[in-house]
Amino acid sequence: MKVLILGIDGYIGWSLALHQLNLGNEVCGIDNFSRRKSVEEMNSWSALPLLPMKKRLDKLKSDFDGRISFYEGDLTNSDFCNDVFQKFQPDGVVHLAEQPSAPYSMIDQKHTVYTQQNNVIGNLNVIFAMREHSPQAHLVKLGTMGEYGTPDLDIAEGFFEIEFRGKKATIPYPRLAGSWYHWSKVHDSNNIMFACKLYNLRSTDIMQGVVYGTRTDEISDDSYFTRFDFDEAFGTAINRFCAQAVIGYPLTKYGIGKQMRGYLALNDSIKCISLLLENPADKGQYRVVNQFDEQYSISNLADRVQKIGNKKGLDVEINNVENPRVEMEEHYYKADSKILRNLGFKATRNIDEEIEIMLDDLLRFKDRIIEKKDAIRQVIKWDDKRASKPLNLPK
Amino acid sequence: MKVLILGIDGYIGWSLALHQLNLGNEVCGIDNFSRRKSVEEMNSWSALPLLPMKKRLDKLKSDFDGRISFYEGDLTNSDFCNDVFQKFQPDGVVHLAEQPSAPYSMIDQKHTVYTQQNNVIGNLNVIFAMREHSPQAHLVKLGTMGEYGTPDLDIAEGFFEIEFRGKKATIPYPRLAGSWYHWSKVHDSNNIMFACKLYNLRSTDIMQGVVYGTRTDEISDDSYFTRFDFDEAFGTAINRFCAQAVIGYPLTKYGIGKQMRGYLALNDSIKCISLLLENPADKGQYRVVNQFDEQYSISNLADRVQKIGNKKGLDVEINNVENPRVEMEEHYYKADSKILRNLGFKATRNIDEEIEIMLDDLLRFKDRIIEKKDAIRQVIKWDDKRASKPLNLPK
Repeated sequence: MKVLILGIDGYIGWSLALHQLNLGNEVCGIDNFSRRKSVEEMNSWSALPLLPMKKRLDKLKSDFDGRISFYEGDLTNSDFCNDVFQKFQPDGVVHLAEQPSAPYSMIDQKHTVYTQQNNVIGNLNVIFAMREHSPQAHLVKLGTMGEYGTPDLDIAEGFFEIEFRGKKATIPYPRLAGSWYHWSKVHDSNNIMFACKLYNLRSTDIMQGVVYGTRTDEISDDSYFTRFDFDEAFGTAINRFCAQAVIGYPLTKYGIGKQMRGYLALNDSIKCISLLLENPADKGQYRVVNQFDEQYSISNLADRVQKIGNKKGLDVEINNVENPRVEMEEHYYKADSKILRNLGFKATRNIDEEIEIMLDDLLRFKDRIIEKKDAIRQVIKWDDKRASKPLNLPK
Repeated sequence: MKVLILGIDGYIGWSLALHQLNLGNEVCGIDNFSRRKSVEEMNSWSALPLLPMKKRLDKLKSDFDGRISFYEGDLTNSDFCNDVFQKFQPDGVVHLAEQPSAPYSMIDQKHTVYTQQNNVIGNLNVIFAMREHSPQAHLVKLGTMGEYGTPDLDIAEGFFEIEFRGKKATIPYPRLAGSWYHWSKVHDSNNIMFACKLYNLRSTDIMQGVVYGTRTDEISDDSYFTRFDFDEAFGTAINRFCAQAVIGYPLTKYGIGKQMRGYLALNDSIKCISLLLENPADKGQYRVVNQFDEQYSISNLADRVQKIGNKKGLDVEINNVENPRVEMEEHYYKADSKILRNLGFKATRNIDEEIEIMLDDLLRFKDRIIEKKDAIRQVIKWDDKRASKPLNLPK
């Protein structure tokens, strides 16, 4: 199978490339390195040291018989996007090349506009490139469970049957996203749903939970590390807690901490994506899957990191910080996740074991986290007028 | 009341400006003249001759004690947008400044990207300008009934209560739009819904039916004419049929013609918008209204234009042309429209009388339609690969 990975330099993109190569597939990647630049803009970097792309590629080429190619470029450039599809002729396309941070999209008007423009237009260009150059290919698009928000209902997988005034119909599950970033993913989902119908394309839209972890089956030595962010914008819940724990920074629990979300280990995320590639949607089908392993509250996660950290001799405190987000802190949450299980997905990792591995990895690079520890603070707020002053971002 | 009209040079924008001035309000308008340019790109023009903006303004200034101001510019330019809001300090904002044509958005990739980019980013800039400079103002946004598509259910007004697995919830009514343009309006609706919650703004999102007519209470002499399009992209159902009837061009009925939609007269459209301005949404409220008078099938409309035209001595034929759209030609359609009626809206126009007035107006400018009659043809197709060749659009 020929797999095109859009956003191959990212956290999931890089791990997925390794796994796909390991499976024997031919991989082509593209990236504009915006993630490295945006994290730098947040005055931070990856806790785990990364090789530059050229060295990453050299290593992959020698380890995997040259079954890897790479193009640097931006999906909002339609000529670039069309070129890549025409040259590579993918069977499967995994679209991870979006601005992926909710807080980043909430910094100010400029960052909101950038996020929606980058994500919506890039995604449209992918649709048109597929239509023109690889109409048989399967588009696996990374969305997020955050597209649904926290409705006071069970969360179905993409569609559900309802009754209204005596008539029944199957309709898209409502989207009630909670940031400009999350809404950009909803816009993408809507555009892809329409494209599948209009152009007879096939796509799986992944509503993914929060991913955590430093390791996959393929990441065995340091030169294969994927990035690991801990700053306010690009660090995600469990990962951030682990980075905080190893440097003695009190875990930043937002509000009362009862916010429930779905989570899965990095190794399981790339296994799920690979499973979907092997089981593509039908021609014309827009398939939505909810991709997560278990649901946890923020408090539960902080408690787990504290307990495991303390066992390792770390002195882990938990701090209830003011919640910068506009979100319900206590709410009903029960999401379906059947489609991937029906395709054979079984979680390979246990959360507590994974936290232990993460802490061990991060302890070796503790100095890198300490050097950028100012990036951990919460200054991006959802609802107040946000000046760029307290952020002190470089222009 | 100070009313800011975004897109004042358009079909509804200009008519609304006249009405708002007539009501005694202070009006500020902006426009980038994209409509005049896009219709020119379709090798067409307004059937009714238009004054250039400078003359339009001179006339308004002298007729309405100078209660009108105007800025030329583009909403995708955030500095321009912020400046206008800061200077004018509106009480009400009517956002009509979008690329408004479904066929135009379906021409090719370039036109799709332009439509979504222009509409989504312009709308985001309006949201941020309101938040910064006029957070108390009421945003009246022009959406379309087409955002809902044609689900096999009654169409509620924006939200409806459903039951799922024993739990009840009020959720956004599903959007199943049928063109890239219609989806751009859905993206806008979602962004505005979020902005109202996040920034405590107030907005009414109008799901409007198809508007028809040449006259309003204020358009009494030719120098006040608003534009009237009849080309393939920017002409709408009844208006196009009337323009076709006066030059003996067989009415272009798409497919079997049983497509049902809501319609309202231009005079009623601006009355509804004005009623909403007088009855703003509450702070933080995102209100959705379905704005139309009656529902008709395309066949019914063609038959009406034929009957009234023939009475005038025109020889009106009806042609079943291949439907260029991807849409159901026979479907359930029953939409609510209660909110405007509860606010006091009563239709002021009768469709048959209005068609007669339109035919009379257009007959006087028959030569202008004949001169551009090639623009009536259907060459934009929803689902086939569309090259720019058959369209022969100027670059």
